[in-house]
Amino acid sequence: MKTVEEFLPDSTRHTRIGFNFLLPEMESKSQQNIEKYGVDISTIREAQARIKSFIHRTPVLTSESLDNISGRKLFFKCECFQKGGAFKFRGACNAIFSLSDNEAAKGVTTHSSGNHAAALALAAKTRGVPAYVVIPKTAPTCKVENVIRYGGQIIWSEDSLQSREMTAAKVLEDTGAVLVHPYNDARIISGQGTISLELLEQAPHLDAIVVPISGGGLISGVALAAKSINPSLRVLAAEPSGANDAALSKAAGKIITLPETKTVADGLRAHLGNLTWSIVRDFVDDVIVVHDTEIIEAMKLCYEILKVAVEPSGAIGLAAVLSQHFQKCQAWRDCNRIGIILSGGNVDLGVLWHSFNR
Amino acid sequence: MKTVEEFLPDSTRHTRIGFNFLLPEMESKSQQNIEKYGVDISTIREAQARIKSFIHRTPVLTSESLDNISGRKLFFKCECFQKGGAFKFRGACNAIFSLSDNEAAKGVTTHSSGNHAAALALAAKTRGVPAYVVIPKTAPTCKVENVIRYGGQIIWSEDSLQSREMTAAKVLEDTGAVLVHPYNDARIISGQGTISLELLEQAPHLDAIVVPISGGGLISGVALAAKSINPSLRVLAAEPSGANDAALSKAAGKIITLPETKTVADGLRAHLGNLTWSIVRDFVDDVIVVHDTEIIEAMKLCYEILKVAVEPSGAIGLAAVLSQHFQKCQAWRDCNRIGIILSGGNVDLGVLWHSFNR
Repeated sequence: MKTVEEFLPDSTRHTRIGFNFLLPEMESKSQQNIEKYGVDISTIREAQARIKSFIHRTPVLTSESLDNISGRKLFFKCECFQKGGAFKFRGACNAIFSLSDNEAAKGVTTHSSGNHAAALALAAKTRGVPAYVVIPKTAPTCKVENVIRYGGQIIWSEDSLQSREMTAAKVLEDTGAVLVHPYNDARIISGQGTISLELLEQAPHLDAIVVPISGGGLISGVALAAKSINPSLRVLAAEPSGANDAALSKAAGKIITLPETKTVADGLRAHLGNLTWSIVRDFVDDVIVVHDTEIIEAMKLCYEILKVAVEPSGAIGLAAVLSQHFQKCQAWRDCNRIGIILSGGNVDLGVLWHSFNR
Repeated sequence: MKTVEEFLPDSTRHTRIGFNFLLPEMESKSQQNIEKYGVDISTIREAQARIKSFIHRTPVLTSESLDNISGRKLFFKCECFQKGGAFKFRGACNAIFSLSDNEAAKGVTTHSSGNHAAALALAAKTRGVPAYVVIPKTAPTCKVENVIRYGGQIIWSEDSLQSREMTAAKVLEDTGAVLVHPYNDARIISGQGTISLELLEQAPHLDAIVVPISGGGLISGVALAAKSINPSLRVLAAEPSGANDAALSKAAGKIITLPETKTVADGLRAHLGNLTWSIVRDFVDDVIVVHDTEIIEAMKLCYEILKVAVEPSGAIGLAAVLSQHFQKCQAWRDCNRIGIILSGGNVDLGVLWHSFNR
C-alpha cells in the first residue's frame, strides 16, 4: 500500500487550501455551510488538490447543432470520459485518499448499482488497498466487468436496497474495511463538487448547470461549489419520471422514498440521503422530470451529433433542457448559457440498441 | 456573403505567418517543400490562423485501459468532435476562406462520400456562399442528412467515381462554382495539417502518429506539419485490407488504383491523387493494413472504453496499433507515445449495430 504523501504532488504537500481567495462575507458563509452540511467550498477545493493527479480533467464540448435544437448555448461537461467511465471516480478517490494509512490498509467496501463500485475499485487499486464491492445481481454486465477490470472483489446481493445493505454489513464485520457510501458521505460530495471548479473555469459565465439526480451526491457537490463561486447561478436537477423521488421530496419539503422505481436510466434509482437532502433542499432550484422516451431521444442526439457515448443516466441533462417543462418555464427563460453534466458512459451496446428500437 | 476580412480576428488581419520560428536550415527545407508539394509548414500555419475562429480545437483523450491493451501510451485526437463530425471541416474551411470574394460569390462544389461534402456545406454556410454537393446514391443516410442540415444543395450521382466526376463537371459549367477536391488540393491538405499543430501542443514528445489513409489529404497535412516540427517523429498510415491501394502504391513506388474496394470503412475507399501521393511517398513511414473485423473491434473499444462515438474509418488508427503487424514490427518497437487520429464520427446507429453483430 502506498501512503497519501507518496501520491501528493510536491506543491500540495502540507498545504491546506484555505479561504484566502474568498471575500470575508463569503468566508463566514462557507463556515456556516461546513457546519450545516459537512461540505463547503473549502472541502471541495481540498478534494481537488487531493485527487488532481489521479483524475482526468474532462473536456467541455459544444455543438452548434444542439444549440440550435435547444435554443440555448450548451456546454457539455464530459464526465463519461472520466476514469472508470463516470464522475464517480472523483468522489471515490477523495474518500480513499482522505483515509489514514491505518484505515486504508483494511480496504474499503460499498454497495452500488455499478459506477460507484467501479470507481471505488479503481481508486482503491490506485492507493494499493482492497475494495469489497456488493453488487446486485441485476446490474448491467459492463458495469460489473468494470469492477472486475479494476481489481475489485465482488460480493453478490439481491436487487433490493435491504439485501445490499445487509450484505455490506456482513462484509464490514468480516474485513474491518471502511464503508464508503455511494453518495451520502461528505468526502464523496466534496469529490463530485470538483466538477464545478473545472467547469466554471472551462465555461465561465454560465447561467445554469443541469445535473442528473439520484442519491444526490453529484448535484450536492456541484451545487455547493457552483453557488459558492457564483450565487446567482441556477442549479437544476434532471430526474426520470419513473424514479421521481427528488421532485416529490422538494415538493413535500422532506425526503420521500418510492416503493419501486422503473426507468431506463439504471443509475438514477437511488433516493436522497439525509446529508444530500439538506443540500438539495437548500441549493437546487428546481427538479425537471423527464420520461424515458425523452432520455432515449437525448441519448441518441449525444451519439449522433455530439459523438459521445453516454449511458441513459448520462443523457438526462440534455433531455431536461429539451423538455417542455424547461423550454416553457418562465423562470428559466433567461438561462442562456447552460452547463450540462454528461455524468457517465457505461452502457452495454446491446442494451443501448434495444432502447433505441423500442 | 461575408468577406474574409470580416471573419478574421484582428490579430491575424494583414499578418502573414512567417518562418521566424524556424531555424535557417529548416526554413530552406520548408521552401523546398512548398515548391515540391504545394504545401509546407508555413501554409499550414497560415491555415491555422485563417480557420482558428471557426473550428473546434478538439480535445485529446487518454485511457489507461487502452494503454494496457495496446502496451503503449496512446493519445486520441478526437476529430469526431470537430464541426460536421469529422476533420474535413478544417480543410474545407481553409479552402473556402482562401478564395477571393469574387471567386467565393459563385459558390463551391465537390463530389464526396460524405464527410467532405458536409464539411464543405458547413464552411460555405459560414462564409455565406452556396455549396453544390454531388453525392453518390449509396452514401450513408446520416452523412447526406448532415449536408442538408448545413444547407448544402445536393445533386445525386451514381456510385462510380466516373459518374461523380461527370456530374460535378456539369455543375461547374452551370454555376461557375469553384471545385474543391476532397483531398488532392493544397488548401485542403494545409487545413488538415492544422491537426498536427494542435496535437503536438496537447501531447508533446510523441514518437509516432497513426492516421487513416484514403485519398491522402489528412495524412499529407498531418505528416508535413509533424515532421517539420519534429523530423524524427514517425507517421504511419492505417488502411483497410479491402481498399489497400496506398500500401500497394508505397510498395510499387507509384500510384496504384484498385478496380473495386470493399470495406466497412466507407470513408476510406478513395485512392491517392498526384499531390497527396508525392507527400505520402516521401513522408509516410509505413502503411499498416487491417481487416474489417479489426476495425469493428477497435470501434467497439472506442465506444465501450473511450466513450467516443466513432465511425469505422475513425477507429482504424486504433485497429492499426492493436494489429499484429504493428505490435510485432521491430521498427515500431520503440514507439511508446503514439498519437491516434479519430478522424470522424458520422455513422448511422443502425449500420453500426449491424456491424457489431455480424
